[in-house]
Amino acid sequence: MDERVREHASVLVDWSTQIESGDDVVLSVGPDAHELAVAVAEKLGERGANLLATYDSNELQRAYLRAHDGEFEGSAEHELALYEEADVVLSIGGQRNTAAKADVPGETRQAYRKANAAMREAKYDTRWMSTVHPTRSLAQQAGMAYEEYQDFAYDAILRDWKSLAEEMSRMKDLLDDGSEVRVVKDGTDLTMRIDGRTAVNSAASVTYDSHNLPSGEVFTAPYATAGTVLFDVPMTINGEAVRDVRLEFEDGEVVSHEASQGEGVLTDILETDAGARRLGELGIGMNRGIDRFTNSILFDEKMGDTIHLAVGRAYDACLPEGETGNDSAVHVDMITDMSEDSWLEVDGEVVQRNGRFRWEAGFEG
Amino acid sequence: MDERVREHASVLVDWSTQIESGDDVVLSVGPDAHELAVAVAEKLGERGANLLATYDSNELQRAYLRAHDGEFEGSAEHELALYEEADVVLSIGGQRNTAAKADVPGETRQAYRKANAAMREAKYDTRWMSTVHPTRSLAQQAGMAYEEYQDFAYDAILRDWKSLAEEMSRMKDLLDDGSEVRVVKDGTDLTMRIDGRTAVNSAASVTYDSHNLPSGEVFTAPYATAGTVLFDVPMTINGEAVRDVRLEFEDGEVVSHEASQGEGVLTDILETDAGARRLGELGIGMNRGIDRFTNSILFDEKMGDTIHLAVGRAYDACLPEGETGNDSAVHVDMITDMSEDSWLEVDGEVVQRNGRFRWEAGFEG
Repeated sequence: MDERVREHASVLVDWSTQIESGDDVVLSVGPDAHELAVAVAEKLGERGANLLATYDSNELQRAYLRAHDGEFEGSAEHELALYEEADVVLSIGGQRNTAAKADVPGETRQAYRKANAAMREAKYDTRWMSTVHPTRSLAQQAGMAYEEYQDFAYDAILRDWKSLAEEMSRMKDLLDDGSEVRVVKDGTDLTMRIDGRTAVNSAASVTYDSHNLPSGEVFTAPYATAGTVLFDVPMTINGEAVRDVRLEFEDGEVVSHEASQGEGVLTDILETDAGARRLGELGIGMNRGIDRFTNSILFDEKMGDTIHLAVGRAYDACLPEGETGNDSAVHVDMITDMSEDSWLEVDGEVVQRNGRFRWEAGFEG
Repeated sequence: MDERVREHASVLVDWSTQIESGDDVVLSVGPDAHELAVAVAEKLGERGANLLATYDSNELQRAYLRAHDGEFEGSAEHELALYEEADVVLSIGGQRNTAAKADVPGETRQAYRKANAAMREAKYDTRWMSTVHPTRSLAQQAGMAYEEYQDFAYDAILRDWKSLAEEMSRMKDLLDDGSEVRVVKDGTDLTMRIDGRTAVNSAASVTYDSHNLPSGEVFTAPYATAGTVLFDVPMTINGEAVRDVRLEFEDGEVVSHEASQGEGVLTDILETDAGARRLGELGIGMNRGIDRFTNSILFDEKMGDTIHLAVGRAYDACLPEGETGNDSAVHVDMITDMSEDSWLEVDGEVVQRNGRFRWEAGFEG
């Protein structure tokens, strides 16, 4: 076994989910994630945690969803009971074909997601964490050779997370103290309110309310969005290529949308429910271990010198205690490159220009 | 997809577990059982059942068990909750290496099994069913080419179950009316009491209290066993080859045991607990679609012209309402060939000789 697989498992179990003896762990395993799952199982045994492995196959889901009449009756009781009793849900993605659900009708997907809201809530109440095992399908999606992709993925995953968390706390402080964010570049001039919201220092650990590995972003839950934004980074959403999404916002809501490719997928998402037309997240990518776009949102959105916005659900961690943010069955991230001819303002002050933060050498305010 | 995979799925969902709309189904998937799992998922979607897939990997289990200190604290709450809420547990075996757990210490296995008694009870309270997807590892274990093995496996699985159930009801009636069974062949002369017990017509459907596909056996829960039995069919138990097991019984209990190969595995099993030294099952194989031994208990024990005995746990279906039969954390089947120079008696009357039942042409009483 590649030693990096064991290191990945160590980060997941110790830094990310902080698993201890007696923890009830659900380990969700993609069909091509077997090797990492074995390494995690070993760590869970060492810690004396309890292990139940679930099988996360998009081919199974496709077969099930396509055969179903679409009348879903809410979360299944057995699945709900599993997540309600779980302490940790650790998802290791790894599909053989990232497009395996491409022919599932959008309305069936949406109906299934909507029906499973209670199950998702129960999962989000655990110390949940999502990662991927570097697979050949992800390498292909990135347009990279397999071993090249492994090097890329482990550079992003096996970072000095403690040190990155310290750097990211600077950005969190700026957002926590600020009231309005403005993003400006060619095709984009967007303002969002962030006062009253708390930014998350997403350092790939549940202690930071961070639930992705790799992570390396600071995010918050904006509102009252106005203006226009162009997402110029290529994406794959629900297995389909989506390019050059342009959204126009008025009073916090998307009032027009277009894309040069995959506009149908975008329309399906925006029509899921009312919350799907409002922003749930503004994220600022700060993981410079990620040095290129690989057509995978988990990596792309964390890349240094990018920002992303998500339509749909907001994370509770960004909201004042007891307050409900934007609610939706979806949460779909879209990315824009901030490395050139672009800047980010907080309350009228430039905090990032052309990919340099204000605390970095070479920053021009 | 091989049409037989879809037929296998149909038998499982319709005949075996009789799944209906709204049923909460746990589908346990081996790493090499993906194709059958996809076919089952499609049927579950058609029926409107709820699907949660678990990942049954002996390599994961090995990594977990070997790393654990062996102090298991009982069934995990999340796993227990899952099975308690499930209506159906459908297990599709399919490992890449049937010996993958060979280096897990016997005492760790036993401790894990003992700790998980409550979880097993919850599972046995559902409409549970176990089958295997024909894999290369099973073909190898059988000493067969892969396509040859597929033909063998589907001959055993895709039977006219209704018609076989009718034939097996004759044997059930004989056992239900009888008090004592005697098995005689070279190296074997064993008597068992069966009065007060109910035989199961194991026709691969939960409506018959039958939980294996393939099945095709009639079994009951014997007691007060006395005499000697030689199991001359090769077996793989816990991943290890076991040959020529000889057990001697007095007053229902094993008083001596030996094997020409794998005696250590046998000893581990018999020492699990008190119930592991008593019989939990007498089964009479009646599936003539199974025409050879393939070193897999699921198939071998159902073969026409064999009988098998299991040490350990008895099935509740064989016992009077409210009565507890032999209890144990194990249930390990061992087989003896009855096709030549052998006979089976019920209350002194020969019911099978040299592989012919009394209702068949060529039977000599």
